[in-house]
Amino acid sequence: MPTQKVAPDSSRRSQSARRAILTAALDLASELGYAKLSIEGIASAAGVGKQTIYRWWPSKGALLFDAFLTLTTEGQDVGEAALPDTGDLAADLKTVLRATVEELNDPRYDLPMRALHIEVVHDPALAAAYQERLDGPLRELKKERLRAARRAGQLAEDVDLDVAVDLLFGPILNRWLQRTGPLTAEYVDQVVDTALRGLRPTPPAG
Amino acid sequence: MPTQKVAPDSSRRSQSARRAILTAALDLASELGYAKLSIEGIASAAGVGKQTIYRWWPSKGALLFDAFLTLTTEGQDVGEAALPDTGDLAADLKTVLRATVEELNDPRYDLPMRALHIEVVHDPALAAAYQERLDGPLRELKKERLRAARRAGQLAEDVDLDVAVDLLFGPILNRWLQRTGPLTAEYVDQVVDTALRGLRPTPPAG
Repeated sequence: MPTQKVAPDSSRRSQSARRAILTAALDLASELGYAKLSIEGIASAAGVGKQTIYRWWPSKGALLFDAFLTLTTEGQDVGEAALPDTGDLAADLKTVLRATVEELNDPRYDLPMRALHIEVVHDPALAAAYQERLDGPLRELKKERLRAARRAGQLAEDVDLDVAVDLLFGPILNRWLQRTGPLTAEYVDQVVDTALRGLRPTPPAG
Repeated sequence: MPTQKVAPDSSRRSQSARRAILTAALDLASELGYAKLSIEGIASAAGVGKQTIYRWWPSKGALLFDAFLTLTTEGQDVGEAALPDTGDLAADLKTVLRATVEELNDPRYDLPMRALHIEVVHDPALAAAYQERLDGPLRELKKERLRAARRAGQLAEDVDLDVAVDLLFGPILNRWLQRTGPLTAEYVDQVVDTALRGLRPTPPAG
């Protein structure tokens, strides 16, 4: 393009191409899995040239991450998706984790989310972006819910909140990633109940 | 080969080629990471033809998994690598997990282990083999140590042992895979102490 100034029409076309590319990336990742996902395939499905994609994203992983972030947080700021707070910490955690498990068990999400995690494991730069833009803000929301529980006397004062988040949310992610067992509501409840037993203040004499 | 019968020399040559291939696969995975690891590169480093590799392994992932399993359990049966039992469950778990963390922080192990995990996340067949041949037997050893702790009154009767293993060993794996924070001895100790608080029998009145 010979000029820096972008006409409104061109900007709108860019926006719509960008959206078509992101949608195609996520759709094809669901359909094919990460290994078979290619920039060529995405370009063809989105009706754009490969060069258009390479101009905006340095790699397949970066594109997929962007697709994931844009389309799954659609219409809402990640920072606004607070955890429920009914006053019952165990019940609230079970609600959130059961919903997570349903999503992970849905084939439409399974493959693209695996693809994203593969890139995070593989690529330190993408892992840093994932921390900064997605996992970090979500972790902050989880810690916020735990802080409220602590103020309500439901969490021990000396528990490290990052360790608490790891104990509560890590096992489900692991079981899904490594396929070590079925992801059921029953498993969610066991993890929450067992972890919370360790996170609560020491109970009075029974 | 025109005959089914294999002469001792040929069998020895096969063995030595097999070993050269496995060693090259692990060395190159350490050096290059998984994305850049190729069958061509492994064949060339091992001094064999690509066809020799494809005759024995269906994929890069299957070869790497075999390399990992053969060379890291060298000389010992996985089923024999029992966890230490000094009678102090917390201390024994910290010993094991601190050693794990040292290994994960070692660049020689980091890349090939990431490569293996990427394949496990990506490939359901490899995940099943990983469960059957490596993760499953190791999990059984962990549960064996927890059963001994339960017999000694150090673990609550109603705790599900798989959930206990997930709470104790999962957070370290996650933090490493997703690079969510530094893998330190201090983190290990916090995870073990916090998880065990939830796994122990309810303490008597304090």
